[in-house]
Amino acid sequence: MAQPKYLTGDPAALNEFIDRFDVFLFDCDGVLWSGDHLFEGVVETLEMLRSRGKKVVFVTNNSTKSRADYQKKLTSMGIPSNIEEIFASAYSSAIYISRILKLPEGKNKVFVIGESGIETELRTENVPFIGGTDPALRRDITPEDYGKIADGSLLDPEVGVVLAGLDFHINYLKLSLGFQYLQRGAKFLATNLDSTLPNSHTFFPGAGSISIPLVNMTGQQPLSLGKPSQAMMDAIEGKFHLDRERTCMVGDRLNTDIQFGVEGGLGGTLAVLTGVNKKADWEAKDAVAVPAYYVDKLSDLRAAKS
Amino acid sequence: MAQPKYLTGDPAALNEFIDRFDVFLFDCDGVLWSGDHLFEGVVETLEMLRSRGKKVVFVTNNSTKSRADYQKKLTSMGIPSNIEEIFASAYSSAIYISRILKLPEGKNKVFVIGESGIETELRTENVPFIGGTDPALRRDITPEDYGKIADGSLLDPEVGVVLAGLDFHINYLKLSLGFQYLQRGAKFLATNLDSTLPNSHTFFPGAGSISIPLVNMTGQQPLSLGKPSQAMMDAIEGKFHLDRERTCMVGDRLNTDIQFGVEGGLGGTLAVLTGVNKKADWEAKDAVAVPAYYVDKLSDLRAAKS
Repeated sequence: MAQPKYLTGDPAALNEFIDRFDVFLFDCDGVLWSGDHLFEGVVETLEMLRSRGKKVVFVTNNSTKSRADYQKKLTSMGIPSNIEEIFASAYSSAIYISRILKLPEGKNKVFVIGESGIETELRTENVPFIGGTDPALRRDITPEDYGKIADGSLLDPEVGVVLAGLDFHINYLKLSLGFQYLQRGAKFLATNLDSTLPNSHTFFPGAGSISIPLVNMTGQQPLSLGKPSQAMMDAIEGKFHLDRERTCMVGDRLNTDIQFGVEGGLGGTLAVLTGVNKKADWEAKDAVAVPAYYVDKLSDLRAAKS
Repeated sequence: MAQPKYLTGDPAALNEFIDRFDVFLFDCDGVLWSGDHLFEGVVETLEMLRSRGKKVVFVTNNSTKSRADYQKKLTSMGIPSNIEEIFASAYSSAIYISRILKLPEGKNKVFVIGESGIETELRTENVPFIGGTDPALRRDITPEDYGKIADGSLLDPEVGVVLAGLDFHINYLKLSLGFQYLQRGAKFLATNLDSTLPNSHTFFPGAGSISIPLVNMTGQQPLSLGKPSQAMMDAIEGKFHLDRERTCMVGDRLNTDIQFGVEGGLGGTLAVLTGVNKKADWEAKDAVAVPAYYVDKLSDLRAAKS
């Protein structure tokens, strides 16, 4: 594979790079900030891109937040944005269900394993759902539940989809219900399949580790609506009517961001070295994806000069 | 592969079969009973085997029950037994940790994901543990927990093993703790890896679907102490000093019971048709294991005549 072009400190190459694209898709953690530390020069870099007429989209696998929640997070980090610039996996899932799946009446409810961000986005798209943050499911399974789950009396016959995202309140009862709906023919979707979630400089269970018991029980893989799944790319394209050739994915992770852009056939991918992956990772023989360009840090783009 | 010998209705062949073995290892659900229905003639069949001087061992992957709990279950089903005839995966795990792993002082605690059966067996073997049914872990994760898990202040530095079994109270906090212990070098054990648990004529999450998030997060496979893992067979051999050539595994499932006996190099395996698998399953080209003998039902053994 061709090795990526290094742009840091090369004003003409940076300028040419920026000119090649109309749309920049941004991963956030590891690119704009790390944990709760905003990287220097990020706000100015985004401002520079906007002032050159570029469309900026924040693309995140975070499924616990709605777009409005995520905008609050961007604001709290000091990054100006508007809600239409945000594309999160809960939203991606909601529009996939409402606009692409188009479930038949009477079988159009979603059983949600996840938090309020998913519920908010499903509501916005007028998709009926059960589960989610419902306190009635935040309890132990009881001896009576087994029979009621088996005979269907504890199940909603209108459920046609199981959507699993990150759920901080995952439990045996929710997994039992999710499995039953899948056994009875519900479609299996996941907001994203990240196995881990970074927090406090270590890792915690990610959305993919919430849905994996259902994969293990059914032998079925869910359709993921998060990076690097192309179902998310299709949803982004559908919403923004972007020209893939004139779009660039910016990220720190090869196996989500860069793979997402490469498999999506985008005109370019830009890796930054402020997150998970380093130069050696794409130089490795078994690299999952190689970016087209890289910079040390996002704010290096500010040196662009025509 | 050779096709199994059908013994039902053949008194001489049955007699010869029984004569070939000193020890019979029995799977329970699907062989002795189904759900809470005891099969006809089971008690008399076990009595006949005992009266011919055979050793009978009940081998179960059920990890929520101690041997004493399981004996109560056998009694409630009307099956006489003594505790020394019972070999359950919680017990298998406890003796593996105490007698084979022999953890060093200061790193010899077990972090348990599971129910009281595991705790009882660990206590009997004098293995120190934390987690399990501790009510302090039956709660939601809090924002403060992330930092305390990351910096280790919520962790016990003496934990050297994570043991995962069936846990009806699985939650995000327990998975987060289990992952941290594994990241810090704890050995990864599982009582068994059954993906599902039969109940009320359907399926619920099994022990293997409780540990799978940790597999997904770490990329590590646990050592299983339940069927068909040969670690369980080794533990059975160690306890009963059995002659494998003179031992027969009796079960209904090819991918647990029969595979367990075949891979263990036992003198024989007997399939019964009162449970999960049928004749067509081992006649299939991709059969995971083929029994040496089969009968329609366990009580067919009573027709044996010398």
